[in-house]
Amino acid sequence: MDIMELATTSDHSSIVSMNLFVALLCGCIVIGHLLEESRWINESITALIIGLCTGVVILLLSKGKSSHLLVFSEDLFFIYLLPPIIFNAGFQVKKKQFFRNVITITLFGAVGTLVSWAVISLGATQFFSRMDFGDFDIGDYLAIGAIFSATDSVCTLQVLHQDETPLLYSLVFGEGVVNDATSVVLFNAIQSFDVSKIDPTIALHFIGNFLYLFFASTALGVIAGLLCAYIIKKLYFGRHSTDREVALMMLMAYLSYTLAELFYLSGILTVFFCGIVMSHYTWHNVTESSRITTKHAFATLSFVAEIFIFLYVGMDALDIEKWRFVSDSPGTSVAVSSILLGLVLLGRAAFVFPLSFLSNLAKKSANEKITFNEQVIIWWAGLIRGAVSMALAYNKFTSLGHTHLQGNAIMITSTITLVLFSTMVFGLLTKPLISFLLPPLKRSTSVASSDPNSPKSLSVPLLGHQQDSEILLSGQDIPRPSSIRMLLTTPTHTVHCLWRKFDNTFMRPVFGGRGFVPVLPGSPTERNQT
Amino acid sequence: MDIMELATTSDHSSIVSMNLFVALLCGCIVIGHLLEESRWINESITALIIGLCTGVVILLLSKGKSSHLLVFSEDLFFIYLLPPIIFNAGFQVKKKQFFRNVITITLFGAVGTLVSWAVISLGATQFFSRMDFGDFDIGDYLAIGAIFSATDSVCTLQVLHQDETPLLYSLVFGEGVVNDATSVVLFNAIQSFDVSKIDPTIALHFIGNFLYLFFASTALGVIAGLLCAYIIKKLYFGRHSTDREVALMMLMAYLSYTLAELFYLSGILTVFFCGIVMSHYTWHNVTESSRITTKHAFATLSFVAEIFIFLYVGMDALDIEKWRFVSDSPGTSVAVSSILLGLVLLGRAAFVFPLSFLSNLAKKSANEKITFNEQVIIWWAGLIRGAVSMALAYNKFTSLGHTHLQGNAIMITSTITLVLFSTMVFGLLTKPLISFLLPPLKRSTSVASSDPNSPKSLSVPLLGHQQDSEILLSGQDIPRPSSIRMLLTTPTHTVHCLWRKFDNTFMRPVFGGRGFVPVLPGSPTERNQT
Repeated sequence: MDIMELATTSDHSSIVSMNLFVALLCGCIVIGHLLEESRWINESITALIIGLCTGVVILLLSKGKSSHLLVFSEDLFFIYLLPPIIFNAGFQVKKKQFFRNVITITLFGAVGTLVSWAVISLGATQFFSRMDFGDFDIGDYLAIGAIFSATDSVCTLQVLHQDETPLLYSLVFGEGVVNDATSVVLFNAIQSFDVSKIDPTIALHFIGNFLYLFFASTALGVIAGLLCAYIIKKLYFGRHSTDREVALMMLMAYLSYTLAELFYLSGILTVFFCGIVMSHYTWHNVTESSRITTKHAFATLSFVAEIFIFLYVGMDALDIEKWRFVSDSPGTSVAVSSILLGLVLLGRAAFVFPLSFLSNLAKKSANEKITFNEQVIIWWAGLIRGAVSMALAYNKFTSLGHTHLQGNAIMITSTITLVLFSTMVFGLLTKPLISFLLPPLKRSTSVASSDPNSPKSLSVPLLGHQQDSEILLSGQDIPRPSSIRMLLTTPTHTVHCLWRKFDNTFMRPVFGGRGFVPVLPGSPTERNQT
Repeated sequence: MDIMELATTSDHSSIVSMNLFVALLCGCIVIGHLLEESRWINESITALIIGLCTGVVILLLSKGKSSHLLVFSEDLFFIYLLPPIIFNAGFQVKKKQFFRNVITITLFGAVGTLVSWAVISLGATQFFSRMDFGDFDIGDYLAIGAIFSATDSVCTLQVLHQDETPLLYSLVFGEGVVNDATSVVLFNAIQSFDVSKIDPTIALHFIGNFLYLFFASTALGVIAGLLCAYIIKKLYFGRHSTDREVALMMLMAYLSYTLAELFYLSGILTVFFCGIVMSHYTWHNVTESSRITTKHAFATLSFVAEIFIFLYVGMDALDIEKWRFVSDSPGTSVAVSSILLGLVLLGRAAFVFPLSFLSNLAKKSANEKITFNEQVIIWWAGLIRGAVSMALAYNKFTSLGHTHLQGNAIMITSTITLVLFSTMVFGLLTKPLISFLLPPLKRSTSVASSDPNSPKSLSVPLLGHQQDSEILLSGQDIPRPSSIRMLLTTPTHTVHCLWRKFDNTFMRPVFGGRGFVPVLPGSPTERNQT
């Protein structure tokens, strides 16, 4: 039984499990803090290892009968744990860095995922059809491709750091967010896939679907963020209440996610853009204490949800039921896992290097190009498969009660193996790889270009408005191109300047934002409100 | 199906319900803010009315078949909604005011609840046995007494305000917290109650149980709070991380609640004292941004949980299933509700006035005595029956599938009627009653005695340590009695001074606290940490 069921049945054993789980979360935080000095270990791997150890202890205590304290629940993951993580990522993302690379990110997330999916599906068809361990049809192979081309944004947040490697972070994490939209379209397409009716309009239909999903999800997130900004600006004018502001921001962000799920859109994309809009407008309309509270409360929620996921995956990995079928044929299981790992490596290489080459062609200055070493890190860091792959695999291979088929059991255990292996190995080796491939000099120059506009870089949060207006002035020092020739030579700057003009003239006066919220006595800067 | 089941089953209709519920929560916040100017309406009544209206709309849309969008779930209430509310109340309580009245509070909560229980049980036995609408035994009547003598701390927080009427707030709210411990003991005693074996040791057994529960629950809460303070003081010394600190405080507080439930203690009492200890020690060991974040994040969680409860109670009240049985005999239902209301009024009057008289006898100065007008408000404000009574009634009358017995159905609908009536009528009229009975002059003097030590009264949170040390010095201006004669004449002050000495000599050096956390560069006052 999963933790939500535990909670609603409320017998005594369920309270024992909840206690254990909360105590383990506390333990992970404390141990993670103690291990912070170490450059290899991160919090997610600590949680994963603690989860595995707990699983072993439970297995031994129940004398090998069960480690069924918790079983991975797709809904717990998608409804409660994922939204705060992705929202916080959008809320704290360096917007300038993100939008500067938005074309490359979309290319990686959309075209890249398709390439990876095609490679893995083809490879799986070739290898698994010869191994004779299950009864898969073409739809199953395409689903396997989709499961293992779903990158894990949560792991990316753990191994790459926005402040140390901003370019890599925004590329790999942004790719992960767009990847989700592609995955949703892929899954829907595969579910309604009919082998007998392949015609050329399928590709067009697919592209149309993707574009609809991408723009509709983004629009929903932006609208939710703007609505929240507008409500807080109009309603709370001069009569601010920190509790209500924080509650409203939290609930509206969550509402945007559930609305996206309601309309079969990509909730991840929606809540990510809602976070971006909220950090750009809403966050500047609230009181000083609301700003500090939202910044840290969202980060804390995201932090706890991340640890929760890794602890969960670790504890679930040892569920004895799933391994029973595999124990008859350990060779097959190892072979399947190895083949999948190889395909994941290959599938990612097949798009990272060609697409980086394409992206570099479009860029004039050498400084903006993605170097070969950076490409290697992008390839490496995106190899991690995490809870998203687990959730999709459970959805596909256990949904109709077919867990007891050998083929399905092997796919589930292979997914767990791959998730554990990739999180541990790729997760552990990313930090050393970055220090090896990227000299610190290069990284420190990137830090300087960080965006002072986002909550993340709120380095001196309480200096008030003087500093704000300084940044506003220095922000206008960016050279403004005035002709079409300039638009062609420096397109990013031109788009940025046009956006700034539009933002300052139309958006900020309506929705608020930095420098556009009038400072009144008893208004946003006041600190004594509850 | 309840909302947790909704979440785990994840079909499309469940996502619709979640959307509706989150949207309603947002609506309650906005409308509650707009109605804030009005002196009669408060947020809980707004939520209750919105919930009722939504129930009506659903009933009409489903053509009278069902309003089964959400059914009250005992576990959702006790596991997720109640802990943040009670923890926040402990975290923000004015400690000096609370401990000054601790004897009166315990008297009200323990003896008072017993008196009220006896009156309601006796009255119910007398009236209901003659009405012939159900088949109740003596255990059922005692349970009815316990259900309707459970006061609702959450409503108290909504109708009384700590800053306006600190004495009344601490008395009525504190009584509600102690009331919970008494209720747990009462319920356990009733469940193991055997009519054939009544002997004089039962009372002793009962008192022993209550004392064990009271002190064990308090000790657990205090230990959890101290442990958290110690961990944060030792571990994070000089290397603070706001996210980890906030997460650890939140998780340890929740752990104390679930541990209390695990050991069959009173979780409410535990988490309340955990909140008090955390605000006294832990809160002073963390960074400036952690302080602001915890203060507002806990208040926000509590705020959302409160609105959630009232919305939930409102929506659940119209569940058509329960009212079907009652529709055959509307007269009986009205009579039962009226009798219960009368008994609640009488049961509360039977202890508030005598116990206030006793409490006044022990106090020397006229300023500290509870005036008659204040007694009336204590009586009135504590009449509200809320979600706790609902949860207990559901536990008693629907647990074994006996909902279809007429007697049980009538008891459930009467509980709902009484909860709605008391929340609306007593809730709405408390504010006018206070302004009528207590002249503003009296209230403003009480405000001056507020405790500068609690997070609630952090009026200028970022002035740093200068202000802190000022308060520390002025706190020592309290006259210190030096002899036993003084202990007898001014016992509260003496106990307070002894506690201060003990606190400063033994507790604060170990667990931290205001003025006892060394200020280092890069330590608690630093604001740039994430």
